[in-house]
Amino acid sequence: LSELQEKCAVAAIVGNEDVHAAPYMHDALYAMQHRGAEATGIVSMQPDGGTMAHRGEGLVRDVYTEADVQRLAGSMAIGHNRYSTAGSKKGHSQPMIDEVIGFGFAHNGNLPVTQFLETHLAKHNIRTQNLNDSEMMGHATALNIRNGQPLPDAIELAYPLFRGAFSCVAIHDGVVTAFRDRAGIRPLALGVIEGVGRVVASETCGLDIMGATYEREVNPGEMVIIDSNGGIESRQIVEGTSKLDIFEMIYFARPDSILYGMSVNQFRRNCGQALAEQHPPTVGDADSILVVPVPDTSIPAAVGYARARGLEYENAIIKNRYIGRTFMEPTDDSRKTGLRRKHSFVPGSVRGRDLILIDDSIVRLNTLPRLAALAEMEGARSVTVLIGSPPIRFPDFYGIDTPRQSELVAANLTIPEIRGKIGCDYLGYLSLANLVAATGRSADMFNLSPFNGVYPVGIGHNKQDIVTPVSMEEAE
Amino acid sequence: LSELQEKCAVAAIVGNEDVHAAPYMHDALYAMQHRGAEATGIVSMQPDGGTMAHRGEGLVRDVYTEADVQRLAGSMAIGHNRYSTAGSKKGHSQPMIDEVIGFGFAHNGNLPVTQFLETHLAKHNIRTQNLNDSEMMGHATALNIRNGQPLPDAIELAYPLFRGAFSCVAIHDGVVTAFRDRAGIRPLALGVIEGVGRVVASETCGLDIMGATYEREVNPGEMVIIDSNGGIESRQIVEGTSKLDIFEMIYFARPDSILYGMSVNQFRRNCGQALAEQHPPTVGDADSILVVPVPDTSIPAAVGYARARGLEYENAIIKNRYIGRTFMEPTDDSRKTGLRRKHSFVPGSVRGRDLILIDDSIVRLNTLPRLAALAEMEGARSVTVLIGSPPIRFPDFYGIDTPRQSELVAANLTIPEIRGKIGCDYLGYLSLANLVAATGRSADMFNLSPFNGVYPVGIGHNKQDIVTPVSMEEAE
Amino acid sequence: LSELQEKCAVAAIVGNEDVHAAPYMHDALYAMQHRGAEATGIVSMQPDGGTMAHRGEGLVRDVYTEADVQRLAGSMAIGHNRYSTAGSKKGHSQPMIDEVIGFGFAHNGNLPVTQFLETHLAKHNIRTQNLNDSEMMGHATALNIRNGQPLPDAIELAYPLFRGAFSCVAIHDGVVTAFRDRAGIRPLALGVIEGVGRVVASETCGLDIMGATYEREVNPGEMVIIDSNGGIESRQIVEGTSKLDIFEMIYFARPDSILYGMSVNQFRRNCGQALAEQHPPTVGDADSILVVPVPDTSIPAAVGYARARGLEYENAIIKNRYIGRTFMEPTDDSRKTGLRRKHSFVPGSVRGRDLILIDDSIVRLNTLPRLAALAEMEGARSVTVLIGSPPIRFPDFYGIDTPRQSELVAANLTIPEIRGKIGCDYLGYLSLANLVAATGRSADMFNLSPFNGVYPVGIGHNKQDIVTPVSMEEAE
Amino acid sequence: LSELQEKCAVAAIVGNEDVHAAPYMHDALYAMQHRGAEATGIVSMQPDGGTMAHRGEGLVRDVYTEADVQRLAGSMAIGHNRYSTAGSKKGHSQPMIDEVIGFGFAHNGNLPVTQFLETHLAKHNIRTQNLNDSEMMGHATALNIRNGQPLPDAIELAYPLFRGAFSCVAIHDGVVTAFRDRAGIRPLALGVIEGVGRVVASETCGLDIMGATYEREVNPGEMVIIDSNGGIESRQIVEGTSKLDIFEMIYFARPDSILYGMSVNQFRRNCGQALAEQHPPTVGDADSILVVPVPDTSIPAAVGYARARGLEYENAIIKNRYIGRTFMEPTDDSRKTGLRRKHSFVPGSVRGRDLILIDDSIVRLNTLPRLAALAEMEGARSVTVLIGSPPIRFPDFYGIDTPRQSELVAANLTIPEIRGKIGCDYLGYLSLANLVAATGRSADMFNLSPFNGVYPVGIGHNKQDIVTPVSMEEAE
Repeated sequence: LSELQEKCAVAAIVGNEDVHAAPYMHDALYAMQHRGAEATGIVSMQPDGGTMAHRGEGLVRDVYTEADVQRLAGSMAIGHNRYSTAGSKKGHSQPMIDEVIGFGFAHNGNLPVTQFLETHLAKHNIRTQNLNDSEMMGHATALNIRNGQPLPDAIELAYPLFRGAFSCVAIHDGVVTAFRDRAGIRPLALGVIEGVGRVVASETCGLDIMGATYEREVNPGEMVIIDSNGGIESRQIVEGTSKLDIFEMIYFARPDSILYGMSVNQFRRNCGQALAEQHPPTVGDADSILVVPVPDTSIPAAVGYARARGLEYENAIIKNRYIGRTFMEPTDDSRKTGLRRKHSFVPGSVRGRDLILIDDSIVRLNTLPRLAALAEMEGARSVTVLIGSPPIRFPDFYGIDTPRQSELVAANLTIPEIRGKIGCDYLGYLSLANLVAATGRSADMFNLSPFNGVYPVGIGHNKQDIVTPVSMEEAE
Repeated sequence: LSELQEKCAVAAIVGNEDVHAAPYMHDALYAMQHRGAEATGIVSMQPDGGTMAHRGEGLVRDVYTEADVQRLAGSMAIGHNRYSTAGSKKGHSQPMIDEVIGFGFAHNGNLPVTQFLETHLAKHNIRTQNLNDSEMMGHATALNIRNGQPLPDAIELAYPLFRGAFSCVAIHDGVVTAFRDRAGIRPLALGVIEGVGRVVASETCGLDIMGATYEREVNPGEMVIIDSNGGIESRQIVEGTSKLDIFEMIYFARPDSILYGMSVNQFRRNCGQALAEQHPPTVGDADSILVVPVPDTSIPAAVGYARARGLEYENAIIKNRYIGRTFMEPTDDSRKTGLRRKHSFVPGSVRGRDLILIDDSIVRLNTLPRLAALAEMEGARSVTVLIGSPPIRFPDFYGIDTPRQSELVAANLTIPEIRGKIGCDYLGYLSLANLVAATGRSADMFNLSPFNGVYPVGIGHNKQDIVTPVSMEEAE
Repeated sequence: LSELQEKCAVAAIVGNEDVHAAPYMHDALYAMQHRGAEATGIVSMQPDGGTMAHRGEGLVRDVYTEADVQRLAGSMAIGHNRYSTAGSKKGHSQPMIDEVIGFGFAHNGNLPVTQFLETHLAKHNIRTQNLNDSEMMGHATALNIRNGQPLPDAIELAYPLFRGAFSCVAIHDGVVTAFRDRAGIRPLALGVIEGVGRVVASETCGLDIMGATYEREVNPGEMVIIDSNGGIESRQIVEGTSKLDIFEMIYFARPDSILYGMSVNQFRRNCGQALAEQHPPTVGDADSILVVPVPDTSIPAAVGYARARGLEYENAIIKNRYIGRTFMEPTDDSRKTGLRRKHSFVPGSVRGRDLILIDDSIVRLNTLPRLAALAEMEGARSVTVLIGSPPIRFPDFYGIDTPRQSELVAANLTIPEIRGKIGCDYLGYLSLANLVAATGRSADMFNLSPFNGVYPVGIGHNKQDIVTPVSMEEAE
Repeated sequence: LSELQEKCAVAAIVGNEDVHAAPYMHDALYAMQHRGAEATGIVSMQPDGGTMAHRGEGLVRDVYTEADVQRLAGSMAIGHNRYSTAGSKKGHSQPMIDEVIGFGFAHNGNLPVTQFLETHLAKHNIRTQNLNDSEMMGHATALNIRNGQPLPDAIELAYPLFRGAFSCVAIHDGVVTAFRDRAGIRPLALGVIEGVGRVVASETCGLDIMGATYEREVNPGEMVIIDSNGGIESRQIVEGTSKLDIFEMIYFARPDSILYGMSVNQFRRNCGQALAEQHPPTVGDADSILVVPVPDTSIPAAVGYARARGLEYENAIIKNRYIGRTFMEPTDDSRKTGLRRKHSFVPGSVRGRDLILIDDSIVRLNTLPRLAALAEMEGARSVTVLIGSPPIRFPDFYGIDTPRQSELVAANLTIPEIRGKIGCDYLGYLSLANLVAATGRSADMFNLSPFNGVYPVGIGHNKQDIVTPVSMEEAE
């Protein structure tokens, strides 16, 4: 369990002439619901270049009726699931559309630097006061289209204004484009559905549900152009170096998605095995120890840990499915209320046991103190907490709604202090080296900024607010 | 995973004078959402005996705003979550209310025999054409109240008309009653919140969330009467013998609920251990075998099986959380569509492995053939399917929406035939004796009719449609 | 123009077997919209005695879609338009229904005495706290039906509990009844549609729109029973003496309705002629005088006045049609706001003229002072105000929402004082004798209580609040 | 009564710094509801140039709650009431807004020629397929604003593309403009509210309700520029010659509005007097003749006719106020259904009388045949029909939704033939010369095209469909 917040899934489909694109898009958004449950939208394109849109606040299953999906005509479409940062705003539904020119745009990620965009738009009399980063990207592209540029050129021209993390899809005049920032911080996968057409999705699980075969990632700095005749073209807009956000693997992505060629489930299990190496049990024996995941993200790590050590594993913590993941609530207040109804222990399951609780990460420390207290009430003999990633000491600026550094517990407290706050007998984090090793890739292929403060893409004026926590070295 | 359908949770609270009952009720309904997601309602009672109600179609989180809950004044309340059988009908929201006399009534269960109720109501000019069993129970009680009876007497007088399975709560004139049928087929638990008041809930997880301490079950044939002054009284309306529906333990109840003194999670884990005894692996070895649950209900059994045999365990099947449990969709058509988007395998997780899939039960066989096919596509070397309960060969008439006997696959096919239909290498069911043993209780304490056709409460004319399947003996 | 408020129209239809009743009912309610614009409802009856209902807040045109009307199956129906007194309450939509016994009930009028009803209902455990007079009448009838009485007997048994003014329709089990209080204070007309069936409506304009021929009034104290086989029966429940509320003629009824054999338009024109006799012009001459009605109710009187005196007539005051009649707004506050946007003078139309403004009645004096001031601003040389009825000095208790006596301007001020408040040069009321003469009937055939304080039906404890205004004699 | 359909009212207000503009705008739209009841909208402007909008389908009283109006912040606003031609389309609500640049635009009139606009917009990649004429005007202006032009220049640059009838208001960046086509076909009046600010409205009744003093018309071809500092400037964009649509006086405008210095009521009364000259009674005598208007528009003409001839006048035809004017229903089908419930005669009012029915115009002849038949049923001895304007023989292209020429009855039948269709004893139209005389102005100050086929502003390709009816001369 985590309190991280990630915003958005994007997807696109370019079908053959007779394909009805919207139902495919609907499925893809369904499968990627975990990336954003606050709002969802689809923009489809008709043969004459006209767009139709359906957007709404809430879950995919609530926003679209069958009639809504049927009404979205055309063989091409883009779609979006949104999770918004602080103070969800109704007006900011995506895909952003400019109906007048037949244009749709959807963005996953975040731009820490928007001053160039703002200046550019203001020059064209566009009021940026109420626009968020995604809308500004869309309007900058729309400006170029209004001035006569085809979609790919319109994006290429605007691209230098986009400063940060972005994996985007856009649609106009019979063409869909998909493009990523130069560091490829957010994922974006390309696939093909035999006999139907080409598809794009933030995660491979979005491809799978459509019956698509995964082909490759859209590369960092690359724009892929797919037209309604089945043509596909690649433009490397800028040189890119892959710096995938490692939190996609730790927390955001669905376990059945594949990133860098490895299933997310396998990676998380690897982390559990690595934890078993790095933090063997300190209390109890094979009969007394019980390994328990904080559901749902941490299950593979707990399974991996228990297996590696030959210990007993139990899903002793029950999560009320109907609340949704905590982070789905937009305001801080409801997040806390929601938590109160979120977890309970299976009665009797931990009595007299030496408990090893496995969680994926710690942000604000909302959940673990309560779980430790509950475990004690349930009669656990001891509580060990193991975290499948290093301490988060730096805020994120690329699309994860992590709090200010002052709210990050590991940026302000030492590990013993955190252990005290949790009220557990032992607290262990996975080291950064072990985390990277679990990916099977080298460290330079990831954005590790939440752990080490090294930001692969400029974060502008935000930089001045970042300090190096005193407790930095001790985590390793 | 199962395709069984259960209807309804009920709950009640009688608080001290200053208690606002509705928020407690809201929490209890939240925690029991798994028992019915089609509609939900709360009826609260004001000091003068007037009722206020809020009911709606959908999930607890969607039906009630904070303002709705705040508006429900009074220190007493009853509540209900509904899952309705075939063809959900808007008009049948519960609690049923008769606002004119200040009365509310909520029912969990099903009455296979309603002819006495119908005749009685018709005698009082009440049109029964559009009433379901729950509403008829409510109106029969209301008739007695209109004729001057206090609530407990009104129920006691009407009780002989109630033929089937029922765990009910009712409210009128400062009194709440909770009562069960003579066999206690559906559960109903009594608790107390220190300093707040007394509470009733279908499952103990509904008590837990309110911070209540479990006291005891409402007994079969008993009516408990709780008044606003804190008084509590018991009336044994008829002699009762406990015949709890064993499917509450197999499938319906939340793993952290307690039935007959045992956690549901523990029972399910026991079933997995029993399966390990009864059906040891037939293919592969410790390195090649992977034990995989069909999420979510079967997880404890799979954990139990793997542990008992020292085999590797993996959550290799991913369920899209946002679809909800299949049975939550009221029409058969959407059930199938929903399934298509329901499960996927973690890529690479089962390649070259001898798979042991654990599921809790088989009704129509909607899911397993597809999972077996997916497993093969994913490269599994062999697929064993083990079911944590015996073959379901008889329909249910006590509140589970199981299909007609003709649709129950085990009533029509032999086990080898079912194995053929699934397309797996081995299929094993848990024997009835082992199932009962896993409860730690004797067989006569349960309704086992789905397995053995012995109906502890009369099912009336339905009896004539039941046949004994030829394949009966072979399951044991 | 007036500030009186009347509540409700009722209607019923009993068609032949193949007739779809609801569209007829819809038309009748349309034509009687002026009697109540706050809510409207239809209850139809199916061959098996089951009721279907559609009710809603607002105008007929807004509440019913074509689909709503089509859905209301059955050859019989009753309907209602509501205007409610002080503080419109959503819950009190009519027809009141008791779906459980297949019963509908609609009431036009008001019961000043409800204590017998309340006591009776309480004896049957019915909570009367939130019931209005109409609902109590309905529930008292429903009680008898539940106890086995057919509809006509159920009403006859309850009739002694009904104390006040009521013209009602009811439906149950293939029978419609229409009945009136012993004084026949509110109108209720009976008609027949050739080849279709029998109909009932508050006003004859409701019959006309359905293509029905007027047959007769339902008599005071009479109940007419119409069954689905075309049978019609009359029961004189109590002896009756007709005391029609004269305000039906002065203000409420549509000009094309017929009451006591005379068109309402003709009556109002007669009042204008009588005013011409009683109050000849006091200022100006044939060239300078302009007769202007306060639209809409006063138009016939103004036309009659001008014609009788050979003076010029002009619709110089424009009313914004889209506001609706003032009294349609339920709260006092919005009534005043609405007025601000209600009237304007045709520019130039009254400059230099001696204006004779004709209005039908004065209640609180909300409008005339403003019109007189506007007339002066527009350059009128003098303003005479003539009222087509006597001063209203006593409150009404029979279904007109007139204010307390303390708010009735003529109960508190002399005529010269009222003239001063209006700010006009002359103020004349029509005498009671002349008003009655304009009806062509004798005074004892009317409820004249607003003018003379003689209440033909008991008003219970309200009596003690009524005083005889000192200015009483001077009006004659 | 008429079956003409006019689209739209516009209004604007520029208040001083502290003024809340929206409530004023709301009042103005209320007063001009008769010009369009299908949709309404307000766009207000905040100090920073940001716009807020509220638009909706329906009447002013239904679309805006008090909260809606309060929410519309800012001291400036424009507003619009819409009546749309054939097939009302939800998407086309006005004011059109381009929120991104803070721009609003509202149009009253119609452009028969849009090809230049379409070509221009297409050149800027704007999809015109789904845009109506008003939206194209708005987008052409917005294009110029995006390219850096201030609002007045943006309009002036786009003005040559606007070909037809238009009276418009626009808002951007602290400036409101109001402008008219070169012929001034639709009215547009300028006023000032002492101490509040400047206002614009289609009709003077819109100024009156705000408490504004009328100053002058916006001139044909002129643009008036009002800024938030109280400045006002006039630009004569093109030379203009006033050709006010005479149907504004005959039918559309409210009787209390002033056009060319004369009240619309006075003009209509003049028409009645002219009819008295041109068509004296042909049947009956002073005692038998009754002059009756077809409500509401024809009332002044009927009053004028009766007065001029010393005949009796009566409002004998009752119109159900709650239906609204016929033309408010967007589809032809509902128009006919509505009619069935629209009119009735006061019973007895016309029996034995020689009836003179006065109507303002005849388009399709939907109403009069039915009224003549009703009059006969009511016992009228004879029926004379007099029309307060000449035969309509040519379609309109400037904002009135008149049917194709083939549907105009006077373009296809001779007057005797029309009389036969009505079924009356005499039919007389007012001559064009007398109509013009009633205005007190010369014929060249009006658009008379519906009568004489002379179109003051080019109608483009529509021209080819117009033929000269054979019956043309005989009308004079």
